[in-house]
Amino acid sequence: MRRITTAIEKIKPIDTEILKETQHRLDSLTKPRGSLGRLEELAKTVVAITGRKNPTLDRKVIFTMVGDHGVAREGVSAFPQEVTLQMVYNFLQGGAAINVLARGVGAKVLVVDMGIAGKIKSNKELIDRKVACGTQDMMKGSAMTKYQAIQSIREGIEIFEEEAATSGVDIAGTGDMGIANTTSSSAIVACITGSRPQDVTGRGTGIDDERLRRKIEVIEKALKINQPDPGDPLDVLSKVGGFEIGGLVGCILAAAVHRVPILIDGFISTASALIACELCPPLKDYLIAAHISQEKGHQIALSYLGKIPLLDLNMRLGEGTGAVLGMKLVELAVKILNEMATFEEARVSRVEEAKTP
Amino acid sequence: MRRITTAIEKIKPIDTEILKETQHRLDSLTKPRGSLGRLEELAKTVVAITGRKNPTLDRKVIFTMVGDHGVAREGVSAFPQEVTLQMVYNFLQGGAAINVLARGVGAKVLVVDMGIAGKIKSNKELIDRKVACGTQDMMKGSAMTKYQAIQSIREGIEIFEEEAATSGVDIAGTGDMGIANTTSSSAIVACITGSRPQDVTGRGTGIDDERLRRKIEVIEKALKINQPDPGDPLDVLSKVGGFEIGGLVGCILAAAVHRVPILIDGFISTASALIACELCPPLKDYLIAAHISQEKGHQIALSYLGKIPLLDLNMRLGEGTGAVLGMKLVELAVKILNEMATFEEARVSRVEEAKTP
Repeated sequence: MRRITTAIEKIKPIDTEILKETQHRLDSLTKPRGSLGRLEELAKTVVAITGRKNPTLDRKVIFTMVGDHGVAREGVSAFPQEVTLQMVYNFLQGGAAINVLARGVGAKVLVVDMGIAGKIKSNKELIDRKVACGTQDMMKGSAMTKYQAIQSIREGIEIFEEEAATSGVDIAGTGDMGIANTTSSSAIVACITGSRPQDVTGRGTGIDDERLRRKIEVIEKALKINQPDPGDPLDVLSKVGGFEIGGLVGCILAAAVHRVPILIDGFISTASALIACELCPPLKDYLIAAHISQEKGHQIALSYLGKIPLLDLNMRLGEGTGAVLGMKLVELAVKILNEMATFEEARVSRVEEAKTP
Repeated sequence: MRRITTAIEKIKPIDTEILKETQHRLDSLTKPRGSLGRLEELAKTVVAITGRKNPTLDRKVIFTMVGDHGVAREGVSAFPQEVTLQMVYNFLQGGAAINVLARGVGAKVLVVDMGIAGKIKSNKELIDRKVACGTQDMMKGSAMTKYQAIQSIREGIEIFEEEAATSGVDIAGTGDMGIANTTSSSAIVACITGSRPQDVTGRGTGIDDERLRRKIEVIEKALKINQPDPGDPLDVLSKVGGFEIGGLVGCILAAAVHRVPILIDGFISTASALIACELCPPLKDYLIAAHISQEKGHQIALSYLGKIPLLDLNMRLGEGTGAVLGMKLVELAVKILNEMATFEEARVSRVEEAKTP
């Protein structure tokens, strides 16, 4: 626990003092003031997070955390649990959507085994931080022990710190894989935002009406049996969470410690962000909501965090696919700040010089 | 005029036959069906436009067309007319927003003088297709002659075809520069969509309330004096258009002839697209709306074209800045189609194999 407490203590409010100068620079660039809209906002966000006037975002990293869920056996997903493991091999071979998109924007994908159910062949590309072979069925009791919840967060912190120390991380993105993890995430979002399960439970990988009803029922029962305390994020994580969700909580905490902007992917990532922000409210300003997914409940979770997503492309895949698209926009926003010519440099007349008739 | 007629005749409906196979491939990739939302739609759009099952989009080109407007002297812009020319030098030196963003996504920017008012120093990077030194003041009569309207479109076609023949164009984007060209575009959008000028006239580069009232008044008078015929797009272009707008019309036509997908940027580009689609309705399917800008009237113009924009980032700069962001998304969408592994290749279980409890 000390590792987590230390991280939380290190997270400082973002540096808004520096923004006056950044605003001045943005307004001196050859464009009408504010005409690049959210790109200008993003550039300011990155400056305030990093504390650097001219940040560079060369080292882009997506943390795709993987874990299995005991609740999968309740028939809440359209896919069998073995798909989690199979998809990990797909990630390692570079054939999944996140690999394709990350290559397309020059980002690195780190695949982390936080708690896959099956046995996985040793692979130097896979980061092994397995807490256990999947969580317990939350409909029957706590998904994990309090100690495992703490361990999963600690592993997440360490993964980020190791990458930061060895290769460096200028900007990060969250990603997830784990059959049934929308079920766990819906339970988290329902608990923390105080929403009814039916309002924050969607079709995940694409379940039919019957299975959706079952999924809602499972979440209701899990919440009833476990009674997670909304005021205690570790209690929520341990009772209805997942190991990959805990890993992402740690990753988000560590990003803020290192003053690295972090793109939050879809529903599972946002559930992780909710836990992280309940643990440490100032963290919120370090997060950039990449997109709004099709998963029901994502909007409620984003609104709770006070975040407006960058993209709305009807996506619902996870893995970090939304985060990596948003990451490209953030990178371009920072290039605007760093590379555009000013009115003076380009000898372009400013608006004040306009001759009114 | 024959050049334009020939182009229009060459434009065929997009190939939707091929899409069955593409849909099959998309559904065989390792992700839940449809879970990449608009990226999957974009991939299909590009396949149908190009007629290629595995299109590649390596050669990305933004056509930034520049022209001056006689109506600038009516005080409709926040910037003086000389800014058009000054910004061209900025484009040529690589310091404008479009240069920065295009570099960031690996796109080429072609800067075209379609009708800048001032004299411009010869520069091998600038494509000189000047129709005249700016249009006439549309509040006093026709902005250009019918012949000039035709010429501007023809130049646009030739610019595209020259680039396609020499370097190649896999995907194109439109861009514009020209002080007062939102005034011209609002007049075009009002005329073609049958909207009231006040409903399609915005603040352009950022004018105040007083100047906005003046701008609306100018557009109303221009439409009253010139009486452009909404059923005759060339009449609309010549009476209230601009040379860069005509150039973009030609560029859009040529893209469709060559079966090249073309990203439509903001308000001015969409006004050009309206004229192009009135000239040749099947063209519509070759267009991808990159973003919704903050300019009032853009939504009305996009709705008229039946297009849903990819991005909503509160931008209002033009130059092709929205198009180039959208272009990156389209490129990534096509990579998904081409590069992702199938369930069979990756040995991932499909949804049908799921064991229901």
